[in-house]
This record gives sequence, C-alpha cells and structure tokens, in this order.
Amino acid sequence: MKTIRNKLVFCFAFCSIVSIHIFAQEHPMLMVTKAGVQKIRQELGKVPLFDASIKNVKIEVDQAIAAGIDVPVPKDYSGGYTHETHKRNFLIMQKAGLLYQILQDQSYAVYVRDLLFAYEKLYKTLPLHPQTRSYARGKLFWQCLNDSNWLVYTSQAYDCIYDWLSYKERKLLEKNLFRPFADFISVENPQFFNRVHNHSTWGNAAVGMIGLVMQDDELVKRALYGIENANLAKGVKDNDGGFISNENQKAGFIANIDEPFSPEGYYTEGPYYQRYAMYPFLAFAQALQNAKPELRIFKYKNEVLLNSVSVLLNLTDANGEFFPLNDGQKGMSYHSRELHTAVDLAYYYGDKNPSLLSIAKKQGRVLLNDAGLAVAMAVRDGKTIPFVKKTIHLTDGAKGNQGGISVIRYGEDEALTSVFKYAAQGLSHGHYDKLSFSLYNAQGDEVLQDYGLARFVNIEQKGGGNYLKENKTWAKQTIAHNTLVQDEVSHFNGKYEIGSKHHSELYFLDTEKASFQLVSAKETNAYPKTTLQRTQVMIKLEALKDPVLLDLLRVSSDTVHQYDLPFYYLGQLIATNFTTKCSSTLVTLSKKHGYQHLWLEGSGLANSTLSQFTFLNHQKYYTISTATTADDQVLLTRIGANDPKFNLRRDAGYMLRRNAKNTLFATVVEPHGGYSYVSEFSTGAKSSLHNIDILWNSESYTLVKLILTNGQEYVLCLANNQNKPTAEHTLQVGEQLFSWKGTYKFLTIK
Amino acid sequence: MKTIRNKLVFCFAFCSIVSIHIFAQEHPMLMVTKAGVQKIRQELGKVPLFDASIKNVKIEVDQAIAAGIDVPVPKDYSGGYTHETHKRNFLIMQKAGLLYQILQDQSYAVYVRDLLFAYEKLYKTLPLHPQTRSYARGKLFWQCLNDSNWLVYTSQAYDCIYDWLSYKERKLLEKNLFRPFADFISVENPQFFNRVHNHSTWGNAAVGMIGLVMQDDELVKRALYGIENANLAKGVKDNDGGFISNENQKAGFIANIDEPFSPEGYYTEGPYYQRYAMYPFLAFAQALQNAKPELRIFKYKNEVLLNSVSVLLNLTDANGEFFPLNDGQKGMSYHSRELHTAVDLAYYYGDKNPSLLSIAKKQGRVLLNDAGLAVAMAVRDGKTIPFVKKTIHLTDGAKGNQGGISVIRYGEDEALTSVFKYAAQGLSHGHYDKLSFSLYNAQGDEVLQDYGLARFVNIEQKGGGNYLKENKTWAKQTIAHNTLVQDEVSHFNGKYEIGSKHHSELYFLDTEKASFQLVSAKETNAYPKTTLQRTQVMIKLEALKDPVLLDLLRVSSDTVHQYDLPFYYLGQLIATNFTTKCSSTLVTLSKKHGYQHLWLEGSGLANSTLSQFTFLNHQKYYTISTATTADDQVLLTRIGANDPKFNLRRDAGYMLRRNAKNTLFATVVEPHGGYSYVSEFSTGAKSSLHNIDILWNSESYTLVKLILTNGQEYVLCLANNQNKPTAEHTLQVGEQLFSWKGTYKFLTIK
Repeated sequence: MKTIRNKLVFCFAFCSIVSIHIFAQEHPMLMVTKAGVQKIRQELGKVPLFDASIKNVKIEVDQAIAAGIDVPVPKDYSGGYTHETHKRNFLIMQKAGLLYQILQDQSYAVYVRDLLFAYEKLYKTLPLHPQTRSYARGKLFWQCLNDSNWLVYTSQAYDCIYDWLSYKERKLLEKNLFRPFADFISVENPQFFNRVHNHSTWGNAAVGMIGLVMQDDELVKRALYGIENANLAKGVKDNDGGFISNENQKAGFIANIDEPFSPEGYYTEGPYYQRYAMYPFLAFAQALQNAKPELRIFKYKNEVLLNSVSVLLNLTDANGEFFPLNDGQKGMSYHSRELHTAVDLAYYYGDKNPSLLSIAKKQGRVLLNDAGLAVAMAVRDGKTIPFVKKTIHLTDGAKGNQGGISVIRYGEDEALTSVFKYAAQGLSHGHYDKLSFSLYNAQGDEVLQDYGLARFVNIEQKGGGNYLKENKTWAKQTIAHNTLVQDEVSHFNGKYEIGSKHHSELYFLDTEKASFQLVSAKETNAYPKTTLQRTQVMIKLEALKDPVLLDLLRVSSDTVHQYDLPFYYLGQLIATNFTTKCSSTLVTLSKKHGYQHLWLEGSGLANSTLSQFTFLNHQKYYTISTATTADDQVLLTRIGANDPKFNLRRDAGYMLRRNAKNTLFATVVEPHGGYSYVSEFSTGAKSSLHNIDILWNSESYTLVKLILTNGQEYVLCLANNQNKPTAEHTLQVGEQLFSWKGTYKFLTIK
Repeated sequence: MKTIRNKLVFCFAFCSIVSIHIFAQEHPMLMVTKAGVQKIRQELGKVPLFDASIKNVKIEVDQAIAAGIDVPVPKDYSGGYTHETHKRNFLIMQKAGLLYQILQDQSYAVYVRDLLFAYEKLYKTLPLHPQTRSYARGKLFWQCLNDSNWLVYTSQAYDCIYDWLSYKERKLLEKNLFRPFADFISVENPQFFNRVHNHSTWGNAAVGMIGLVMQDDELVKRALYGIENANLAKGVKDNDGGFISNENQKAGFIANIDEPFSPEGYYTEGPYYQRYAMYPFLAFAQALQNAKPELRIFKYKNEVLLNSVSVLLNLTDANGEFFPLNDGQKGMSYHSRELHTAVDLAYYYGDKNPSLLSIAKKQGRVLLNDAGLAVAMAVRDGKTIPFVKKTIHLTDGAKGNQGGISVIRYGEDEALTSVFKYAAQGLSHGHYDKLSFSLYNAQGDEVLQDYGLARFVNIEQKGGGNYLKENKTWAKQTIAHNTLVQDEVSHFNGKYEIGSKHHSELYFLDTEKASFQLVSAKETNAYPKTTLQRTQVMIKLEALKDPVLLDLLRVSSDTVHQYDLPFYYLGQLIATNFTTKCSSTLVTLSKKHGYQHLWLEGSGLANSTLSQFTFLNHQKYYTISTATTADDQVLLTRIGANDPKFNLRRDAGYMLRRNAKNTLFATVVEPHGGYSYVSEFSTGAKSSLHNIDILWNSESYTLVKLILTNGQEYVLCLANNQNKPTAEHTLQVGEQLFSWKGTYKFLTIK
C-alpha cells in the first residue's frame, strides 16, 4: 500500500488526488485524545494555568447551561440575534464537550446532546438563509462560511460525546444533520468549497473533521483534495470581489496550504485573515495528526503550518495586535481564540519553542487538550523565555517569488517598527497599496497608520456587520495608504483583474546591523511606463537618541505626472516650516479613486529646501522632513467626505504633491523628545535634522546627504540597478568623488 | 502677647493684618525638619516605598549633577530652552537639598551651593525678561508666576544647606539673590502679588518660604497678608482676561485660602488649577506648621487645605485624571508632583486617612520628608484601604453660596460618572458653561466630553506654550460644552464682567440611594428673561444591566428663541433613527461665539417622537435618546473650522436644535452592550428605550415617562418650584392622577 506520506513527498508542487483509507479510531480524536484525557485527569489541580483555564471555561459553560437551550430559526446577518446565538452555541458546545471528557460530568454530555438534537430537528426544515447577499448562502447563517465555522466546532463537540451517545442517536444525527450539512457546504456549494481562499479552508476543515469523527472516507478525501470535476467557471467573482476559481483548479485543504502560504509561512491575504484561517488549518491538522499520523501533516511543505504561527506572532505590534495589512480590523490580536489554539499547537507539535510560552502566559489561558496541558506544564516548570520580535522578511506567493513584506524593527522594545509591503495582491482582501508602509512605536501605537478596512465586523447596524461600500471606495484605494499615487489614479487603476497578475519585487536588503537596516523594493506594473522604487532605511545615529527612518521613494517615467505622497499621521499637529491656507468652506480633493473621501483642510507651497511637519503622537514628537522645492505643494487632508453614514474615521493626512517625470521623494521620519501630561515637561520638541540634500538621483544611482542641526553629515550611496555584492561603483558629484563596493554605502562625512 | 492663633479664631471672615514674630528656628524647617531627618535616617533600608523613592530621586539628581551646571540667560517662553532649563534646575535643586539632608553626602550640598551662586551671579544682572506677553513679567522666566515657582522650590534647597553654608555665603545669597527676588515678585509687582488668584498663591508662598528660611519677619508678614496699601486700580485685567483687583482688596496667603475655596474645599478655578495651586498652599502651610505651629494653619477655615486634597482626588475619573472643568489640560492627574505632595501631607497633617495610602501606592513614590516617611511606613504596615470615590456635591464660593458641582457616580467601579456643573464663573479660567455636564465610564474614558482648554502647556511651538486664541474663541464659549445655547450666543454674551457677577443655583438634590440619584439646578442669568433648569438623574433600573442618565433640560422664556443642545460624544457613530444629509462641501455653523469653529457634517429633521443616536465608545455602546418632534433639527458637527494652525482637535458633536419659548429637552443617555475587537462579539448593540413621553412640562411641574422596549414604564414627577420635603403635589394628566409628597417621585407604572 502506498502511504499518503510517500505521496506527499512527491507532490509538493501539486498534489494529485490519492486514495486514502480510514481506519477505525477511538474517540475523542479531534481536539483531544483518549490518552490526552487520561494525562489531563492525572494532572488536574497541579498545573495552575491549566486549572485556571478549566475554571474559566467551566464558569462560561455553566452559565450557558443555566440559560437554557436556544436554537432560533435563522434570520439575521452577522451581529444580529440569530447569528450571534448560533455562533455562541457552537463555541459553547465545543467547550462543553471537552469539559465532559475532562471532568467526566455527564451534565455536559447531556447539554451537547440536547443542543445537537435541537439542531437536528431544525436543520432538516431549513431552506437557504433568508439574507441574500452572499455568493454562497448558508442555512444556519447568511453564508456557508459561518455554517462551516459551526461544523468545525460542533464536530469537536460530537467527537467528545461520540462514545457516550447510543448507536441510534449517532445514526440519527449523522443522517439528518452532519452528512447533509457537510454535503451542503461542499458538493452543493462548490463555488464556496473548491476555492483557494480562507472561506474554503473553513469548509474543508469542517467537512474533514466531521468526516473523521464519522469515519467517513469520502468526506475526508473531499476535504483534503476538493470536489472532483467541480469545473467552476473562470472569472466569476464572490461578493467581496474575489475570483471564485483559481487558475490551477486545485482545491481542498492541501491546496489551501500549498497556494496562499509562502515558504516561510506568510499568508497572502494578510495577518487578519491568516489569524482567521489559522483555526481550521490547525484544528484540522491536529485532528489529522491524531487520526492519521502517517500523513505527517505538520511536516508538510517544510512545516509551513507550524512556522506560520511564528510568522503571525511577528506580524504584531508591541501590544500583540496584528498589522492591518490588506483587509484587517484593527484591535485583533494574539489574544484571539484562534491564536490561543495556534500558539498551544505550535508549541506542542513543533519544537517546543519556549518563547511561545511567554505568549501563552500573556494570553492567560490554554487549550483544554494535550497541547494546552503541555504548555501549562512548561510554564509551571519555568521554561518560559521572552518572545523577542526582530526584523523579519517574508516572501509572498506559494513559491516565495511574489515580493513580500519586511517588518523593520529597531530595539528589543520595538522602539520603532516600519511595516513595509512589496507583496502580491493578496486575493480578494488585497489593497492597491504597492510599496506602502506604516509605522509603530514601542507602545504599539500607530504613528503613521494603515487605514485598515471599512467594516465593523459583526456590528449589525453597520451594513449587517459586513464590508461597507467605503471599503472599496476608500480603504482599498491607493490614496488611503502611505504610498505614491500617480495622477490621482489607484495602482492598477484599482482593478483586481490586473492587480492579481502582478507583484512588487524585492530589490535588495541588508538588515544584519541593528543600527543600519536597509530594504529596497520596486514596482513596475502599478502604472504603465512608470517605475517606483522605495528604499527604507532604519538608522540609529550616535548623535540622536532615537532611531530615524529614511524613506526614499524614487519614481521614473517618460512623461510628466502628478505624484501624491501622503502620510497618515496620528496625533496633534504641532508645527510646520511652511505655510498653509485654510478656506472657510471645505471641498473634496477630487471625485474618485478615494480622493472623493478626503477633505482639503489646508494647502500651500512646500518649503523651498526641506518641508518639515511635526506632530505629537501620544507622548512623543515626530517630524516628517522631506526634500522639496517651492514648486511642490503640501496638502493637509481629513478623511470623511462623501460618507453620509459616518462609516469612516475622521483621520488626518499630510500629503506632498509634485509634478515631475523622474523624481525622488527623500523623507526622514524622526521620533524625538517627548511630552508628559503630568509633569508638563516638553523636551526635544524640535527636529535635529537641518537638511536632506539630494546629491544625485538617476536610474543608476541615488545619493542623499543628511545634515543634522549639530553639523554632522552623512551620505547614503545606493546603486539602483545593480545589487551584486561585488560590483564597484564610482560617481563624481560636483567636486566630490564617491566610490563604493556593493549595493550601498553609508558614509559619515563629518 | 496675643498669639496669631487667637487672631485667626476671630478673623475667619476677614483677616486683619496682625503683627507676627519670627523666632529663631533650626534648619531645615520647610519641607523637612531636623527631627524628621533623624527619623528618616533611622528607617533607611526598612521602608520599601520610601527607599524606592530615594533611589529614584538619587538617580535623577546624580544624572543632573553629572550633566553639569547650566544657568542660561533668560530668553524663551515656556517650552523653550531657557525656560525648561531653569524649571528643571529648581526641581532638581530641591531634591538635591533633601538628598544632602538624608544621605549626608556633601556633593549634593556642593551642587546646590554652586547652582545658587550661579543664579546669584546671573540674577543681579537681569533686566525684565525679554518676552513681553505677561501682565507681570518675571526675570528668570517670562512671568512672575514662574519666578515664584522657582523661589518656592529653591527656598527649600537653600533651607536644606543653610547650616552647611558659611555665614558669609548666606549673606551674599540673601543680599544679591533672595531678598531682591522676593521684593521683585511682590512689592515691585503688586498687580501679581496682591490678587486672589493661583498666581498670587505661588507668589505669597515663595516670599513666605524664603522669609521663613531667612528669618525675615517682614517677608513672612507680606506673604500672609499681602502688600499693605497696594491700591490696585479696579477693572484692570491680566493677559488671561482676569481681573487684577478683587472687590475686597484682600490679599496674601490667608486671603487666598479664604476666597477661592468653598467651605468643603472646592477651588473656584477648577481642579486643574487647584492642583497647580495645591503645591504652594501645602508646601507653605507645612513650612508654617513646622516653623510657626502656633498658627495652626492646617486647622484654618475648618481644615480647608487638608479637605481640599480629598476634594481634588474626588474630582478625578477612574484613571485619576482631573475633570477638565474650566481651563484644564486633559491628562493631568493625581500622578503629578503636586498631588504627591498633597496626598502625603494630607495624610500626615490630617487624620491619617488610610484610603489616602492607596493613592500613594498608585503614585509609587513619596515625599522625602517626615510626611512621606509616615505614608511609606503605613503602606509597609498594611494599613492601606481603597480610596472609593462616591457621588459628591461641592459648593462654590468662599461661603459656599455660589452654586457648585455634583459628581454623580454609579457603582463602586465608577461605572458611570456624570460631572454636573452649576458653579460660579471660576475667575479668569472660567468657561461660559452653565449647567453643562460631561460623562465618564469605568475605565476613565470620556463618553461625552468637556473640551478642556485650547493650549499645549509648555509646548513652545504652540504659541509659546501659552493660551491660544482658540481658548477664547472656542474652548470658553458655551457651544463648546454639553449645555444649552440660546440664539447662538454664549452665556452672559461671553462677557467675563457679567459672568463674574452670577452663579447658578442648586435647586434640589437627593443622591442617598445609589440606584436613583437626582440633582437639579437652575440658571437665571445666563440669558436675560430666560430660565434654565437642568435635572440629572442617574437611574439603575432592574431591567437594564447598565445605569442610565436621565437628563432634563427645561427652558422658559417669554419669547421664541433658537435653542441648541450639543452632545460632544467620543467614538464611532453606529446608527441613528433619523436621516441626515451631507453636502459635498462643508460650511461652518455660523460666524461667532464658537460656532465659527464648527463644520456642519450633516443635518436633517429629528425623528417625530424620539431621536436616537448610537455610538461605540471604546468597547461599549451608548445611545442618546431625546424626545423630539419633526419640527426639531439634528446637526452633526465637527470641531476645527477657522483653525489655520490646527490648534483644535477634530472632535465630533451631535446637536439638537429647537425653536420654542418654553420647552423641555428630555434625554436619556444609555450605556448598553459591548463589542470585543478580539472575539468580534457584538452584544446588546441596540437601545432598550422605546420612548420618552413628556407627560407634562410647566413652570411648576415636569412629568416624564420612560418606556422600555420590554414594555416596562416609569414616570418621574418633579416639582420645579417647590423643594420642601413636606410639600404635597397633585396633577391630573389626561385620565391619570399623579400625586406625591416632596420634590419628586419616581414611579414604576408597569
């Protein structure tokens, strides 16, 4: 017999559908094992973090049991009563199942059984959900996605009481509820199930997990490899604007690991959706590991599932909140339930990385299973070491050849973090934000923000908790990001079909030395015949207390364009060295591509040499200094125009505007000094930068001189088209000769 | 010999100038005593909080000593280099003096001496400060106020090394520095020294404290009772718009206790300035207690100085930040240095209130003196009990007959707090905000904000760190507050001369029961021939999880006016039950009285029965529901128009507008449900209020019915002109007869 394992070794690039065999298994097997339960019972009362976790779960479940069973007829969108009730039901059921296993208190099994039969009774009567917005309407919920959430959790509850139920009860549930449910979200909705998308990952896991419990071969196979010959039409889109069919027509759980994950474990949709998909990825993987260890699922694609947990933790600010790359709701963090699961499983099935324990400690709770017990015991035994976030570079694309993301950090305390994006489109949740960046401080505060999404997830009054139209008209548009807009048109003309075909390219990076970290990337497709190159350099100069970010945005084209470069600062404007005029009425910047959402609060001519803009963000000053001429314009903007329902935040922007063919926006973002609201001391409130002198800017080279107010001077020499370490470069600038070997050199002049 | 003590007993209402005698004293005597130092030395290493405090102070002072002495020629406004350097110098000098006493390490004495002689050398050369904005320019600083800060702290440093200096050194310092300094801020600037104002309090304390150290009778007398026959012209104003001369021409430290403090200890300028004045009040009082215990200064006016500390602590939100009544910079809190001093001294010289210890613990440091040691020992000995903030009512005015403030709190966790103001003008820092209120939650977040001031204290780039003109054009204006504006004109026409003559009046209060707390106040002078009555009721209904605030604003006039009632909510608008139109250009609401700073973001007709406005503040929903008719308008505003220097925050407002003679704005502010950004659960996102039915509204009675969505009904019956507890009232409304005894009754109908 060919084992699946051998197959997997040979099908890294493309997994063909193989025949698999299910063996009789003991229950439980999904989230927890029989052996695991025995071990847990032995350790009860001896492992503080585990005991505390049980206690909290018990309180929650006991309250739910006391409140009684409520299985309403489906009616609402997310945030509405029926939606939230069914959601709560599956979360509680899963926990009740575990409590039954661990505490061996039958009342939990009774509760799960009664709920399951309430669903059994309801489900067989259900037509499609009455809300029609989804491309794949569910039955319990408005979309198959949420139905799949239900089944991922409920299959675990069923697994936990499987042996406790009678044969007849099991058959009834499987016949009337689970099998039809699994078929509905798969074969009856191939446009949902057979994609490479976080939606399908949930669908795959749901079908696979219930298949394992039911020991149903066919379902497990369908989960792993998709529906055969689904033949989805090409070019059809879902209600979020994403393509239903991927080019290779691959589908199923394995395809969903292959495609959206880069080799390091970056998920192309971005961290918010990676977090969301993490639960079905890991829950199903764990179940497969328990039920079918020969699959070696955690080893698949160089352990990408386990590695992706560490990637996800690295894609957080100092508070543990995910960077809102692409569509992402701010505030989501590693305190979410998905990350509890992810961290515990990554520890247990990975190499027992003790730094994960520090995250588990911050989370304050563990899974009620084998993995959670292992984590809690290791924490108890003092094995924790800090999880220190460093500069990381992640490639995008299944093969890691579609650009990527750099998170450039200075300081062990994450004193300054730039999140620099030169990735692919990111499927339907992607934004048109090539070469954009955002900036964070040591407290996890945003300094220069990425807007995130225009949605209030699960808040029913706000468009049913779904994506609002401002997500498309504002949040995805280029002007909503800290990157360059040409002629007031978004990258790829804001068209998903075009954007999906392209990605930026990493040009060069060197971040070995903490005091000088350079990343440079290029984008040649966002605008026809225009090349963008952005180079971000995190520099810690001896003379300055804080690191600075040197940001070089080079544009070249063969015709003159209007280039807009916005910085969405957060905080209070303190001072500028240019003058802006404010009018007594506010008008919008323009009519489309997001500009229709910006009020023009002030505008004027830039400073003739260096435009400086100082703001106070929480208790720290920041100055954005850009080399400008008197032909440049400065614009002060406010988000919120043409937003009658107040779906957008009224946040501020500072924008540079320049008409040119080839040009360089040379900017330094400089944290400095501080202000205390309690002592009312203001220190270092002024920039230490005297000037930014662009010595040279061409297709081949960019040379920029920084001059501090104390007289010190530094020059960065950068080769723009030659990144071989051995290449030698010589350039005469005025009377001065610059020569260097390798892509760049950073010189201290005086 | 008549002692000062007997004098004080007889001069409660008006203190005549008495002859006082200074006796030879041992040094130190101001912040710390010789006996205190001995005790401290005995306890070193045994009292954790004290030891930690010394350690921190030592690090700070050692760093300053290592940095060397810097006494620059005065040049800058606040926030500028010379200003901040001189400020840091006096703060460090004071600490160095204490370290010398406690650690008996001469290097600290040397540092203080060297700094003092650097000042001695500089001071005698100084003309008036070059910046001319102040009505009382200083020499080291731009205003005498900051010169006085310097002397209050520096006199303590001098006191600590007094015995260590030679006779000759002392005479030199006193002749060239201290005596001329004290004369300059007093007899040479009577317009500064002889007022009832926080400025003068600092001046009085400065002169008094250096007088005590120098054993200079004349200076101490001047400090306590002011300059004799200063004869300040009436009607002259300072650069903040305050009157220089008070009516009674009383002056000096005692007058500054008599006048601005109400009997309970509320300071008429508001908590931000009370905090600021607290340091000189208590530091000088402590010095007097040490040097002249027969004065019994802490017993004066029924212990008002000590009581005012507790008042101040009660005027904070759940984070310990002061309510920004009148001019107040947000973020100032009981973590300020002034409050460290205040809490320790109030504990030590008061009745050793153990709840003060919990504040000291949160502050994390104590004074390096007798009081600080006592606090730290008590903390060590486990005497701490929580400081629980309850509903409090404070009168305003020296005699407590000029209205006041109510802080209405529900819950031990300060779940909901309304700060209701019906006070006097508050001297030159007062705002035109009669019957305004602001609302806070259990986390200390503002829900409905008071704007605070328009100033960035000590941030030089923002107008030298001083009051900005928007403080007058916006922050002080009525429309900047959550209160009623008639015909778009501020209370008292925004005129200080008129506002200073009047105050609101408390009409009735009953806050005995936590679940039903009612405060009602009236204002009859803000607008000629118009009477305002506002009644705030904090109600905890059984049916609702959260308390609600019922807010009844009754207006009566004999002609029709436009009444505007704004609510400056903080957070994200979620839903309204009325429709507003937004235009594609923004215009301001009007041209003056603050309206010129408001953009009109949306407007429309109110709901014909109940207008509901729901917003999300952090993780909690709030709905503002107001009984309206279709003739009312709703306006959505944004602060920030006509603000070319971006001095104002772009905060939102929701405003009701009604044309009427006599009317009632009946509003319920209702916290409900919640949202988690991590679980993405949205619960209770909709209001539980079905309607507010105004059953009756007349000069005599107001009857309002609240109807919940669950069908429950409640009626509040309020007598508007009869607050005798024995009075009986009967009123026929339609078919229903209401009768009650006393000012109000709250009925559960069904």
